[in-house]
Amino acid sequence: MLRRGIKPFTLHKDWWAVKKNSLKSLFLSPASVAFIGLPRRSGPGSLNPVDNLMRWGYKGRLHLVHPHVREIAGLQTVKSIASVNESVDLAVVSTPRETVPRIIRECAQKGIRAVIVTNQGFVEADSKGGELQKQIVEEARRGDLRVMGPNTLGVSNAFDCFTSSFMPAERNETPVGMICQSGVFFVGAANLLGGMGMGVDLGNACDLGFLEPLEWLGLDPRLKLIALHAEAFTGGARLLEVAGKVSRRLPVVALKTGRSPAGAKAATTHSGSMAGEDRIVDAAMLKTGMIRVDETEDMLDLVRGFVRLPRMLGRRIAVVTLTGAGGIILLDAMDACGATPAAVSADAVKRVQDLSPSWMPIGNPVDIWPALMKHGMQKVCRIALQDALRDLSVDGVICVALALEPPDHDHFSAIGVIQEVSLKFDKPIVVWCYGPRFLETAALLEEHGRAMAISSLERGVRLLARMARYEQWKRVAGQEPECSA
Amino acid sequence: MLRRGIKPFTLHKDWWAVKKNSLKSLFLSPASVAFIGLPRRSGPGSLNPVDNLMRWGYKGRLHLVHPHVREIAGLQTVKSIASVNESVDLAVVSTPRETVPRIIRECAQKGIRAVIVTNQGFVEADSKGGELQKQIVEEARRGDLRVMGPNTLGVSNAFDCFTSSFMPAERNETPVGMICQSGVFFVGAANLLGGMGMGVDLGNACDLGFLEPLEWLGLDPRLKLIALHAEAFTGGARLLEVAGKVSRRLPVVALKTGRSPAGAKAATTHSGSMAGEDRIVDAAMLKTGMIRVDETEDMLDLVRGFVRLPRMLGRRIAVVTLTGAGGIILLDAMDACGATPAAVSADAVKRVQDLSPSWMPIGNPVDIWPALMKHGMQKVCRIALQDALRDLSVDGVICVALALEPPDHDHFSAIGVIQEVSLKFDKPIVVWCYGPRFLETAALLEEHGRAMAISSLERGVRLLARMARYEQWKRVAGQEPECSA
Repeated sequence: MLRRGIKPFTLHKDWWAVKKNSLKSLFLSPASVAFIGLPRRSGPGSLNPVDNLMRWGYKGRLHLVHPHVREIAGLQTVKSIASVNESVDLAVVSTPRETVPRIIRECAQKGIRAVIVTNQGFVEADSKGGELQKQIVEEARRGDLRVMGPNTLGVSNAFDCFTSSFMPAERNETPVGMICQSGVFFVGAANLLGGMGMGVDLGNACDLGFLEPLEWLGLDPRLKLIALHAEAFTGGARLLEVAGKVSRRLPVVALKTGRSPAGAKAATTHSGSMAGEDRIVDAAMLKTGMIRVDETEDMLDLVRGFVRLPRMLGRRIAVVTLTGAGGIILLDAMDACGATPAAVSADAVKRVQDLSPSWMPIGNPVDIWPALMKHGMQKVCRIALQDALRDLSVDGVICVALALEPPDHDHFSAIGVIQEVSLKFDKPIVVWCYGPRFLETAALLEEHGRAMAISSLERGVRLLARMARYEQWKRVAGQEPECSA
Repeated sequence: MLRRGIKPFTLHKDWWAVKKNSLKSLFLSPASVAFIGLPRRSGPGSLNPVDNLMRWGYKGRLHLVHPHVREIAGLQTVKSIASVNESVDLAVVSTPRETVPRIIRECAQKGIRAVIVTNQGFVEADSKGGELQKQIVEEARRGDLRVMGPNTLGVSNAFDCFTSSFMPAERNETPVGMICQSGVFFVGAANLLGGMGMGVDLGNACDLGFLEPLEWLGLDPRLKLIALHAEAFTGGARLLEVAGKVSRRLPVVALKTGRSPAGAKAATTHSGSMAGEDRIVDAAMLKTGMIRVDETEDMLDLVRGFVRLPRMLGRRIAVVTLTGAGGIILLDAMDACGATPAAVSADAVKRVQDLSPSWMPIGNPVDIWPALMKHGMQKVCRIALQDALRDLSVDGVICVALALEPPDHDHFSAIGVIQEVSLKFDKPIVVWCYGPRFLETAALLEEHGRAMAISSLERGVRLLARMARYEQWKRVAGQEPECSA
């Protein structure tokens, strides 16, 4: 349901070729970058972006611009961007807010097509900051360059060994792209996303908004998924169109904050964002196939799930469990989020039934406890998992495993079995490892195969339900024409 | 609103003295225990309960009853309970289901007043199992003894070094009591509760239900909290009365499963439970001050929170954060669960305001990023935390901290400061540590002081909101007469 008059848009592989070089410099590693304004010190605690670039092995040329200091981090500086004696692809500006419009103008004069403005104190701050941000946009238009920010860490591109961020960061080539409006996702990538190969922090999004980063990351073959954090969506109908197209290619998991009145108000003083009406955001996400999450931990689970697991093609879940109580918790959780207990056939559970006491009816959840007490965990878990995965009524499996201390662990662990079985079926297996060694066992599980460890049963169910909903959206969307304009 | 005719009930300190010794043998370490039926093997993988008792340093006398084997785990066995040559306080029965009624009778003849029946195959299984369970109850009544189970791991009492459980377990004297209907909480105590000092698994609850364990644990001065997992509540109005009384003493956190139709149906084949109508359960919990959680991770957070944190006396939360986006996520989360952003006074944030750029308005969330960039994390975090905690409008604080790799960590860590400040104020501080070293940093934080690390911002808010709701219930309940009968 796009507004009339918007011209159809097609993603094509050489998208960047028809875009300005400005975007190429932002989203690929620039051949030459200038940092204008940066800490005099380097090393621990200095927040000097040059430290990150050196640690990351940046392969381009680096220019440091500082009016007062001759040398930073062992590199000679120049006094102004004009004095740099070669062409520069990207400038990262961290100077007092009053100076930024002027510096943007100087960058334009130098022929720079892309600028990241990191400092705060703009539209999110006061009316003077709002005025300065307006001037930044004007200078950018006049000088034909693109601005990311202000109030941003910029870009982080682990694949191409480039980051503009001044926050200490590890380089980590996970196939996860992140577009956000806060540095928290850059620094917290490990616990919010399980790692981030490519990150774009839009900050106040005065010029560059969600549209182009989403297009770009949607085309990057190194990414399996895009995670998105927005305080406000800009880009209107065009953004919806792009989001719908990108969602057909790869999942876009979105955390849209400022849902509540207090949160929305706070967004104006954080990134200067107008959060917008939440139910409209909801509807837009549904339409475009974006997967909305309410909580940060659900985002983490989805990112990890989409990266690691085979696709969840329907919403029917089989449970293989050594705890009946866990099975009930899972059934409650399915009911709460629209997943369905798979109607596992009597055939599919026949072998587990045969290993179980005669008085025990086996169904879904497949309770393997009495069987494994008699026949051992490895044998029973292998049979139960394989038979469930083979059943046509099953789209994915949640498995409950033990995480005991050694040497008991060796007797009751099904980790090896799960890893092996996970490679034989194109269906997701999510595993809750419980017991005193749950963290170590979860890490061990993910060393091989493609099952995924989850920290709670309920989160496992929500993950599979959302993965299934995405696939369903794709099936429906796949039958529609690509552009509805 | 209790039924007429129920006689008022008062908990008193010597409650156990007026109860039968049967309960004493169950809930304190028995002076003499007999295991009737147990694995021939011992050691890793054998699930031999004697291994646990030896590891735990059980101080009472141990009798092993086995008809065919002369020695188990280095201990001589006897052929029947009748052959034990001294009085026995507690019998733990793990024999084929058909034999259990007869063995109960033999136990009664031996003068045993308490029996734990571990095996499965009773009312949760088939009609024959139901019949056998009925016989167990009849034998118990006739023999004047109490039965826990069947289908249970029994009791686990780390303080008194006794466990009847055959699942490998570490002894862990945390002040957490657990009453449950599944072994999953015994084995999974670490990841479901953060440890368990005392546990009672009711299994099918054929005789002993929630009532007496709740009374007993509610009186145990070693416990700070009771966690409860129920598939069905038995005990009716009397249980409500006891729950209300216990809740006045210490928090009762309850996970009632079988909420959904599928879950309720599964409960009948797990513990033979009739889950009951969920909204009635809800109403009963509200009335009695029990804190209902929907998800296992919320239970973990509440258990850890009540053990570690000062009380949360109201629902007004102040946020001290170095990420504005995190502040917005927190405001959204407060809105979703009935917590309130504290109306922090201008006075309370004056010192942070003075350290911040003039263009930056400081409120709640207290955004300390620009201030700490200039004045250092330790200094700014200390001021912000103290001033927020001192403010009369603040009941508790959520603090966002960094978890970087060393040596950067040393410059940006506020762990020491938070630990120190947490000891000066009787208000809870919940800390989200984000960055690549979040697990290590969280563990470090909890080594000293009484702030608590949390794995997500949203969970931190829910925790404080629920802790506040409990205190509110206590205030209201405190004005009512103790017994409403």
